[in-house]
Amino acid sequence: MVKVDEGDAQLGALEAPYTKLYSVGTSNGQKITIFLELLKKDYIYRKIDFSIDEQKQPWFIELNPNGRIPVLSDVDKDGKRITLHETGVILQYLADKYDTERKYSYDHNDPLWWEQFQWLVFQVASHSPLQGQAHHFVSFAKVDNEYGKKRYTDEAKRIYGVYEIRLKQNNGWLVGDKLNIADISAYPWISRSRLFKTDLSEWPNLQKWVEKIAAIPEVAKGQSVN
Amino acid sequence: MVKVDEGDAQLGALEAPYTKLYSVGTSNGQKITIFLELLKKDYIYRKIDFSIDEQKQPWFIELNPNGRIPVLSDVDKDGKRITLHETGVILQYLADKYDTERKYSYDHNDPLWWEQFQWLVFQVASHSPLQGQAHHFVSFAKVDNEYGKKRYTDEAKRIYGVYEIRLKQNNGWLVGDKLNIADISAYPWISRSRLFKTDLSEWPNLQKWVEKIAAIPEVAKGQSVN
Repeated sequence: MVKVDEGDAQLGALEAPYTKLYSVGTSNGQKITIFLELLKKDYIYRKIDFSIDEQKQPWFIELNPNGRIPVLSDVDKDGKRITLHETGVILQYLADKYDTERKYSYDHNDPLWWEQFQWLVFQVASHSPLQGQAHHFVSFAKVDNEYGKKRYTDEAKRIYGVYEIRLKQNNGWLVGDKLNIADISAYPWISRSRLFKTDLSEWPNLQKWVEKIAAIPEVAKGQSVN
Repeated sequence: MVKVDEGDAQLGALEAPYTKLYSVGTSNGQKITIFLELLKKDYIYRKIDFSIDEQKQPWFIELNPNGRIPVLSDVDKDGKRITLHETGVILQYLADKYDTERKYSYDHNDPLWWEQFQWLVFQVASHSPLQGQAHHFVSFAKVDNEYGKKRYTDEAKRIYGVYEIRLKQNNGWLVGDKLNIADISAYPWISRSRLFKTDLSEWPNLQKWVEKIAAIPEVAKGQSVN
């Protein structure tokens, strides 16, 4: 029996093999729980307690020097561990390792791979950070800052317009003809647009896309994990 | 002879094969020109004119619905074209296609690939967007907004601290033991920290890393393209 110690005092050393997710039910956290549910993959969920800044504690910084959730540790039967942060990276890793039938992804040899990669990176680099700032100024900041509210609400709405065009041109999915990791990355952000006081009525294709994804039982289950 | 028309009235249809970069000499633009110079790759540089919002014109939106530079078109001898946006995607594409000796990258079968991917995505998803906001509030915004200045300056500095730890632990490079696409992605941002009035003296390993990269002639050449 091989046990692996990741420095987590709460759950202690764990018996290999296992997949462990350090997370919280934010939009970024939900990307991974939704995908794990779709993959029907067993995993250990370790909630990180923001109220005591657990993500800034030395043992967690060893796992992710950026001090952010989610973090995924994947340990094989010999106890060999890979630990990854950045949601785009974790989604790509889970796709390559566990979506072997490519139900929710395109593999590296597929002509659609670069398109999938492009929309995945667009989501994590251009969409999340800016909508995240809109959430901050509209819902979480302790000060009322009109400039910040307007700047990031406008920017997030502009990005919704980019998705709207894409979904219309591509028959309802971001890439190819099925739900895939690019959609899975975007969904928990778009479905929580209320956090910057925006509903989707301006973008009918985007609204339809959200409703279609929300109706998948594994998505609802993954989104409810917290 | 095959000619390819990308809708660019200025340069017109071009004879295949070719590699064409639509860009401007911002930090994001420089990532790609630096890498192309390091690869000694011939390419056509098409400067986009922000003063007339060329990046919002319909022909450009056809190339990148997000209306942002850089955009890379790579056309083979038969005129088959792949067009990509998002700097992280373009860097990975150029590495896979043109860095065949893997001088500046690790390939998909290398154990370091996931580390390279992680630091590349960290750069495009967590670093660029936030330092970009710091540039906005400190150097470009028409209003003086103390809250925005402080929020994003603090955040960019925190991220510099993440790099500092990583470079110290990893002997001076972000991944493995050589300059690679993760460093190339970060360098044009770190080297222009003056845009949010920050010098690197707080982060000695990061400062040494910048000086080491700045001294490479191809980097200087790539950074001067505008």
